Amino acid sequence: MRIPRHIGIIPDGNRRWAKANGLKKEDGYEYGLTPGLKLLREAKKYGVKEITYYGFTVDNCKRPKEQVKAFQEACVEAVKMIEKEDVSLLVIGNTESECFPKELLAYTKRGNHINQEKIRVNFLVNYGWEWDLNDGVKSKEVSRIDMIIRWGGMCRLSGFLPVQSVYADFYIIKDLWPDFKEEQFANALAWYQKQDVTLGG
Amino acid sequence: MRIPRHIGIIPDGNRRWAKANGLKKEDGYEYGLTPGLKLLREAKKYGVKEITYYGFTVDNCKRPKEQVKAFQEACVEAVKMIEKEDVSLLVIGNTESECFPKELLAYTKRGNHINQEKIRVNFLVNYGWEWDLNDGVKSKEVSRIDMIIRWGGMCRLSGFLPVQSVYADFYIIKDLWPDFKEEQFANALAWYQKQDVTLGG
Repeated sequence: MRIPRHIGIIPDGNRRWAKANGLKKEDGYEYGLTPGLKLLREAKKYGVKEITYYGFTVDNCKRPKEQVKAFQEACVEAVKMIEKEDVSLLVIGNTESECFPKELLAYTKRGNHINQEKIRVNFLVNYGWEWDLNDGVKSKEVSRIDMIIRWGGMCRLSGFLPVQSVYADFYIIKDLWPDFKEEQFANALAWYQKQDVTLGG
Repeated sequence: MRIPRHIGIIPDGNRRWAKANGLKKEDGYEYGLTPGLKLLREAKKYGVKEITYYGFTVDNCKRPKEQVKAFQEACVEAVKMIEKEDVSLLVIGNTESECFPKELLAYTKRGNHINQEKIRVNFLVNYGWEWDLNDGVKSKEVSRIDMIIRWGGMCRLSGFLPVQSVYADFYIIKDLWPDFKEEQFANALAWYQKQDVTLGG
């Protein structure tokens, strides 16, 4: 089986899921935590070398403040959960704005965690594509992405790592992110087998 | 009807079409010319303001030389066909390499053709995303893209205008580009109605 070396994850649909389940929109994010962990474990099982999660963006911070607070907290918790797994973790985003949670500053350097044998996990927090491009590609530690899996049915990047995504194959899952199931990940990998990778050639 | 202001067109599948029709791979490109013209006329009819065609890329020039010659010729012919329509035309690409057809140098400045009432048509010729990004976004005259329509079944950008495409919705058509039909374009616009445009917010 041809395994994508680096997979980008766009975990969309938390707010729609909350609404559909009779919750307030901002209550959806915490239901995205366990899916993130399950996905990471699947990726390790298949031998994926690098995963990048789309946490939240500079654009997202324009939303109502109870939503901003909720996704900030969920991202802090997600990073702390991932840290306990056997990974090489890096948080990437604009640390110079208010919207970046201070608790995550310590994770913005891979530091001692560089280890070729461990899966690399990048977590985008207060990320912005303009911020990324304007300063000579801030995310340059992130490698080219082979496949992007997006939950929630939309077929778009929404500003996700434009440079690393130029040749990525997009796999769209209609289900919302909190409804993550391991078989969705398996289906994505099965689909990837049928894509001819030409890197633009 | 909510019409995308700017549509990106990735006309993929010419070589697969040629093979399926008993022709040599390089003979497929000329069957993509009439589709391009038909699409342009549809876009004008619907009031689309800007169209960008993915002609060929720096990456594509690594292909066998008979293919390179064939897609260069097809792009020159396409630009000359489009010129005769009532459009504001601009060819964008790396003019400093051998692979850029000299006949198209005259089209790399919009010049007198700027006219707000005419549909803008951008045609990417010997385009490269690295070339574009490295020199401070060479394609800065090209506006944000609302929707990308790709023929040939692949769900990826293949290096197409990474900056302008950050928020674009992707619509994928399984049919190969020479099998273009007006109804595919109509279906793409109908699909676009159902996308909520948030620009990352």
